[in-house]
Amino acid sequence: MIRTQGVTAPEGFRATGIAAGIKASGALDLALVFNEGPDYAAAGLVTRNQVKAAPVLWTQQVLTTGRLRAVILNSGGANACTGPQGFQDTHATAEAVATALSDWGTETGAIEVAVCSTGLIGDRLPMDKVLSGVTEIVHELAGGLTGGDEAARAIMTTDTVPKQVALHHADNWTVGAMVKGAGMIAPSLATMLCVLTTDAVAGPAALQEALRKAAAHTFDRLDIDGCCSTNDTVLLLSSGASAITPSQSELDEAVLRVCDDLCAQLQADAEGVTKRITVTVTGAASEDDALVGARMVARDSLVKTALFGSDPNWGRVLACIGMAPFKVDAERTTLQFNGIPVWQDGAPTPGARDVDLSGADIAVTIDLAAGAAQASVRTTDLSHGYVEENSAYSS
Amino acid sequence: MIRTQGVTAPEGFRATGIAAGIKASGALDLALVFNEGPDYAAAGLVTRNQVKAAPVLWTQQVLTTGRLRAVILNSGGANACTGPQGFQDTHATAEAVATALSDWGTETGAIEVAVCSTGLIGDRLPMDKVLSGVTEIVHELAGGLTGGDEAARAIMTTDTVPKQVALHHADNWTVGAMVKGAGMIAPSLATMLCVLTTDAVAGPAALQEALRKAAAHTFDRLDIDGCCSTNDTVLLLSSGASAITPSQSELDEAVLRVCDDLCAQLQADAEGVTKRITVTVTGAASEDDALVGARMVARDSLVKTALFGSDPNWGRVLACIGMAPFKVDAERTTLQFNGIPVWQDGAPTPGARDVDLSGADIAVTIDLAAGAAQASVRTTDLSHGYVEENSAYSS
Repeated sequence: MIRTQGVTAPEGFRATGIAAGIKASGALDLALVFNEGPDYAAAGLVTRNQVKAAPVLWTQQVLTTGRLRAVILNSGGANACTGPQGFQDTHATAEAVATALSDWGTETGAIEVAVCSTGLIGDRLPMDKVLSGVTEIVHELAGGLTGGDEAARAIMTTDTVPKQVALHHADNWTVGAMVKGAGMIAPSLATMLCVLTTDAVAGPAALQEALRKAAAHTFDRLDIDGCCSTNDTVLLLSSGASAITPSQSELDEAVLRVCDDLCAQLQADAEGVTKRITVTVTGAASEDDALVGARMVARDSLVKTALFGSDPNWGRVLACIGMAPFKVDAERTTLQFNGIPVWQDGAPTPGARDVDLSGADIAVTIDLAAGAAQASVRTTDLSHGYVEENSAYSS
Repeated sequence: MIRTQGVTAPEGFRATGIAAGIKASGALDLALVFNEGPDYAAAGLVTRNQVKAAPVLWTQQVLTTGRLRAVILNSGGANACTGPQGFQDTHATAEAVATALSDWGTETGAIEVAVCSTGLIGDRLPMDKVLSGVTEIVHELAGGLTGGDEAARAIMTTDTVPKQVALHHADNWTVGAMVKGAGMIAPSLATMLCVLTTDAVAGPAALQEALRKAAAHTFDRLDIDGCCSTNDTVLLLSSGASAITPSQSELDEAVLRVCDDLCAQLQADAEGVTKRITVTVTGAASEDDALVGARMVARDSLVKTALFGSDPNWGRVLACIGMAPFKVDAERTTLQFNGIPVWQDGAPTPGARDVDLSGADIAVTIDLAAGAAQASVRTTDLSHGYVEENSAYSS
């Protein structure tokens, strides 16, 4: 796993990022990922929010073909809740990318271009800047200027670092990826834009299966603040340029490992994070129970503020799990902080109030003693930084 | 509605509060409410949390008789998650109250004494201080020293003000009450201890019906942080001392009004509160949909931090309601802040970003245009004060 490489690590992909003027700050804000082929297979997942941004609605449509030539992504505006005009803006952006690529000699239709946007909900994008940016970015790519790092930087919002990773398989094929996301992150896709690329030979169905399985165990189990966005999009593109055809399980494994690494990066850069917390429920009657329980604790404001204060306030964890929609027997339940039992056999342990939680990583483990299933959810603490960042975001 | 009077406003009740030394600070921490009769009817509701504190388990048992002579309440410790010893402590407390009252000439059994505790989860109470405190507080009551205000103060934890109210009915009967609660407040009883008293003549069934209906529309619709405690208890005691028998609807109305006023007091004194927020969902297909939707928005960290910053970030409200478990049509939905439309007809209104939310009261209204049902949930903002208070509570 190499974090200095991203979407351009696999053969057959170009990418870059530019400052198109969408962000008032002048920072990078427009990214293009281009698949040079020979294959153009693609799969994707989008937010389960009923309120979907215009680019999500567009991308859902183009994904039905199982084929993508390019992905254009912008930060500086979500283009969500912008009505029919917002959808026209997305369509015009895809058309502009297709036209510019065609002018460059790569015959492309708008239907082969996915669009992703991230930023404040509710404002239309400055389309003059977006469209001239599209011309410029295609020109840069055509001229051979390519930089996965710039692309990863151009999709950042409140992210403090670009996030990318590449996994080179021993059989000579590669999966690369970039992701953005810092707040509004909850299961049913951690809120984010993510593009994965591979030079493995794999059709849309194989890509979709690998992505679906990986997301269920990674992005869907990252929960920073319980809030699910309007713009979540995860795309997986294959160029087939390695001419290697991995088995489904090899592909599944590689995509899972890449997504898992991206989740760790998202957690570590979450808004206001001072603690990286993993909540694990074991001994559950079903994996679903375990996941629901872990999510409840991961979302509990009193647990999250206590952990911000390095306070082993295990009573809040027990009180939280007591609200689960399945049977919880407190007498049989065991709680651990960082592997140290704090509640077992129906009573607190002698050292329960003295567990050292001053480190940056905290493991909260709840054993329900009700079965053999388990699940983990990654989250962060609820800090002054989170409140600060989110009380002054749009203004 | 008179907020300078509480549980001793109705005829037939004595109450007071003392400093028994349970709190290290030396503040008032033990309260007794005593029903002088001639009736001793009682009803109650307790937390729906599966992890119930010892005093809750005890109080559930004594409530099955529909009869209470006294309620003993302590702050400084929740006596929750304290195992069989914790339950024995509760039982011993009730026995001590019964013995002391019997010594004073009021023959009382432990089964006629409800016990309520509040404070940190997981520590046993200092029983020597509790038991000597019981002797002292009964002695004070016997000696005629009575003060509902002291009782209301003695149950405070992170509350900054005592909370009590009395409603004198035109027909010469009264309902009085005191409540505590500031954090860990969520539907399925706002987290709190609450004692209501009345001198109306009403049996246990009538009291229970009035309390159940009132709680469903008041305490169950107050949600400060989505966290439900292990100790929530609401009790309603009747002395019958007025000799007036109100109709069920008169009783219902009076209890509802008292509970509603207590909720407003709880909201205004919630941990870290800088904004009192009422989230109302109208035009829902069912009252249940309306309530679920209003709760989701009231619990959304991004909405709550935005409102802390007086930021009319309506996109976060729309994104939140988009995750509802019922159909939401964003095109038909209307959003208002303080009565000013910010989203309607599928688009933001021109002044949506400029709505003034600098005041202490904020009304968020969501019209789903899907039916005629509605519901409101009271909450507060997510502030630095909330994080501060809850990251350093037990340490």
